[in-house]
Amino acid sequence: MPSRTVLPAGVSSTSFARALGELREVVGAAYVLADRDELAPYEKIMIPAAEDDYEPSGAILPASVEHVQGVLAVCSKYKVPLWPISTGRNFGYGSAAPATRGQLILDLKRMDRILEVDPVLCTALVEPGVTYQQLQDHLKEHNSALWLDFPGDGPLVGPVGNTLERGTGSTPYADHLAHACGMEVVLADGRVLRTGMGSLPGSASWQVFKYGYGPYLDGLFTQSNFGIVTKLGLWLMPAPAAYRTLLVRYWDDQGLAAAVETARPLRLSGTIPNPCRLSNATLMLTEVMRRAELFQGSGPVPNDAIFAAARQHGIAPWNLTFSLYGTLEQIGPSLDIVTRAFESSGGEIVSDYHDGSQSNELNLSSFGLLNWVGGGGLAWLAPVSPARGGDAIRQRDIARTVLAMHGMDYLAVPTVCGRDLHHLTALVFDYGDLQARQRAKDCLRDLAAAFTDNGYGLHRAGIGLMDQVARSYGAIRRDVNRALKRALDPNGILAPGKSGIHR
Amino acid sequence: MPSRTVLPAGVSSTSFARALGELREVVGAAYVLADRDELAPYEKIMIPAAEDDYEPSGAILPASVEHVQGVLAVCSKYKVPLWPISTGRNFGYGSAAPATRGQLILDLKRMDRILEVDPVLCTALVEPGVTYQQLQDHLKEHNSALWLDFPGDGPLVGPVGNTLERGTGSTPYADHLAHACGMEVVLADGRVLRTGMGSLPGSASWQVFKYGYGPYLDGLFTQSNFGIVTKLGLWLMPAPAAYRTLLVRYWDDQGLAAAVETARPLRLSGTIPNPCRLSNATLMLTEVMRRAELFQGSGPVPNDAIFAAARQHGIAPWNLTFSLYGTLEQIGPSLDIVTRAFESSGGEIVSDYHDGSQSNELNLSSFGLLNWVGGGGLAWLAPVSPARGGDAIRQRDIARTVLAMHGMDYLAVPTVCGRDLHHLTALVFDYGDLQARQRAKDCLRDLAAAFTDNGYGLHRAGIGLMDQVARSYGAIRRDVNRALKRALDPNGILAPGKSGIHR
Repeated sequence: MPSRTVLPAGVSSTSFARALGELREVVGAAYVLADRDELAPYEKIMIPAAEDDYEPSGAILPASVEHVQGVLAVCSKYKVPLWPISTGRNFGYGSAAPATRGQLILDLKRMDRILEVDPVLCTALVEPGVTYQQLQDHLKEHNSALWLDFPGDGPLVGPVGNTLERGTGSTPYADHLAHACGMEVVLADGRVLRTGMGSLPGSASWQVFKYGYGPYLDGLFTQSNFGIVTKLGLWLMPAPAAYRTLLVRYWDDQGLAAAVETARPLRLSGTIPNPCRLSNATLMLTEVMRRAELFQGSGPVPNDAIFAAARQHGIAPWNLTFSLYGTLEQIGPSLDIVTRAFESSGGEIVSDYHDGSQSNELNLSSFGLLNWVGGGGLAWLAPVSPARGGDAIRQRDIARTVLAMHGMDYLAVPTVCGRDLHHLTALVFDYGDLQARQRAKDCLRDLAAAFTDNGYGLHRAGIGLMDQVARSYGAIRRDVNRALKRALDPNGILAPGKSGIHR
Repeated sequence: MPSRTVLPAGVSSTSFARALGELREVVGAAYVLADRDELAPYEKIMIPAAEDDYEPSGAILPASVEHVQGVLAVCSKYKVPLWPISTGRNFGYGSAAPATRGQLILDLKRMDRILEVDPVLCTALVEPGVTYQQLQDHLKEHNSALWLDFPGDGPLVGPVGNTLERGTGSTPYADHLAHACGMEVVLADGRVLRTGMGSLPGSASWQVFKYGYGPYLDGLFTQSNFGIVTKLGLWLMPAPAAYRTLLVRYWDDQGLAAAVETARPLRLSGTIPNPCRLSNATLMLTEVMRRAELFQGSGPVPNDAIFAAARQHGIAPWNLTFSLYGTLEQIGPSLDIVTRAFESSGGEIVSDYHDGSQSNELNLSSFGLLNWVGGGGLAWLAPVSPARGGDAIRQRDIARTVLAMHGMDYLAVPTVCGRDLHHLTALVFDYGDLQARQRAKDCLRDLAAAFTDNGYGLHRAGIGLMDQVARSYGAIRRDVNRALKRALDPNGILAPGKSGIHR
């Protein structure tokens, strides 16, 4: 073994070498990676943190459920913790890296079968390695009239990983967990659980009805470390006859409040069926220019400079987008309603806007912002509030204040999902600049604390922030998570530290 | 104590007397019921089963979370099992009675506060004793523009019990768990867990965002015995500007298939936003006549007689209803689409039908069928299939065959919920006629078995059927339920046998 081996906590180098030997028997030597060079792709965390703290001990790539069971048996024997990843591209949250140093990455990318697409029932059943691009290609090959809903990092990631992280997209199917139906989960002891209708012999309903009988368990296996999901059912959206994407510009920074107040009732009445995304000026500027072209000083770019540059590109302080779907006849009256509502709220409407993520065009929409400062550092923060104008403004001000304290810009996409608003905020920085990385790390910690201290809890966290966020939800919640962990994974083999859940 | 005391399994009469004494200290003597006469209201099971098998040992009525905690402490000490009920009107599934004899009913009806209704965010927070009638009255008093969605037994039952049983309604908010947001759960050891955003200090988002951080737990506390839900958040539907309920009659018994095939794509495109209910002729006849007026023979009423009588009342073999909601301008184009689709599928459309349950009118729609044979016996069975015409026909034929074997009529409301069809089937019988009750009991067992043997799993079961249905989902699923039970309720105090989950 190479000298710089990172060992799992409490596992001797002899034991670890034996474990690797046995694992090679299970999946084949080519699919057990323990050389530092081979592991490099798993260490590109992008987030502001010390890579050393998250170095894996190795990676193993099973090709089947039987492989996964074999791996679990070996890892249970040697107490080697396993960090399951689907495509390993949890960008802005730590990518493929484990929550604690020395875990063995269980890379499921070879399990990449599209097991079924039902064009009548509009469902699919996929393995963890399937990417959105792959599923999209499959649908196109079969001339399918089904749409995918995908997150901002689109083609590179996959529906299993994104759903388990409770990711969201941009169409009416944006809530990915709500549109998942039926899981196959390999438990720590190797038993294979099918949730919902999936464990009934001969059931044809696994992908059509999610609750099954008795407690509904799917939620348990999201943002957690209670099992390894090896199959996931998906609901796919029948392609609408037509759609129309609108942009509403608010030329006043306070327009954020009016936008939220106008969007919420239209979302709740169903007139707008997808999330209403409000991109701020800086975020949209990242698509057309770099920070250095605008500002060379220290601290964040002043608002005046941002707004002036933005105006030159037709970008307002706040830019709201959403879509209407249906036949042209169905879209017509809804278009009248939203036009009247947003115009009287002070918005300026551009009614033939294009945003592929709200239809069926895979794109990498969330990567443009990496160009702003360059250097590839990115962390996302997602505090939740009620979808009220006042809360959106308060979150904006918290974010600007804390970011400015650390000399960073405010790039945000507050999104009216429904009754809830997710103030999705990006920290971008030069990853290679260690000072910039440290500043971003401090900022991320302080920003998370500022949001939670004000009652705005985070609904997703990167590996560097998991314990802090889990603590914000209190001791009882953490104790319950731990009791469930012990019930389903008594040896604590699966992803220790995930979502702040330790053994 | 009266002589006919029913003791919890394994608890001596001395211990039980001591437990009752301590429980009187907790909630007050008036709220501990142990006399058989006082317990009679809890024993009206309506379903085909022997009441003796489900007799409670007593009932206790706490008025607060602190009371519930006190009760749990006493019951843990004496190992007295507790069967929590909200309003105790789980009609057709066993009403208030426990799944096994001798449990102490924890009747939460005194905890009946409407803690909050937010007219802006369209949410509510209620206690278990709140009924739909009470919530409806509250909304009307406050001139609220919010709609409730309620099950067929409407005003008498409440949102907490119905949601925890995964009940459904008739509007776009029909999936009650999907429209619940945030729980307060008293665990067996007395700790109080708030799910979702509820455990974050100062959170204003408990009722607006359900997933929170880490595993999403709400599903765990439905159809289970893992905790006592003492508060539940609800999403309420903003009243639409208008609505239009349609009836589509299929004058051919095979029209069931066409109806399902036509409804499914319209549901999935969102053109029809609520479940499409298909009432069969017999079910609708119960509203206008009694069985004895039509048929005096033995065995089920022949189809010809049913269809002939139905036709006289304008009732078809299959009668599909659904609604369109929105402004009149929005409803117009959707009405054109559904009219074209159902007409070309062979349906006859009545476009100004009235069905209060699809709007905001509380009613007792599901009780009319009790008049069919009289005598108050009722059991519901709800097998799930994909929403395909062929499956609906197959389920119909299974139901008719098994029911006929036991001399019973086929009363059914196959419902296209979305991708799934729930073939909701009622067994009605004269509860006081012990022979009829036994026949219904055998029929219920055989019908459940026939559905599950054909791959159509049940998604809800009455107390007499819980073990059978749980078994149909296999050993691994049951073992996982049991592991979770032991993690959250190691003494097995809460509702042993619920959903087939024993300690």
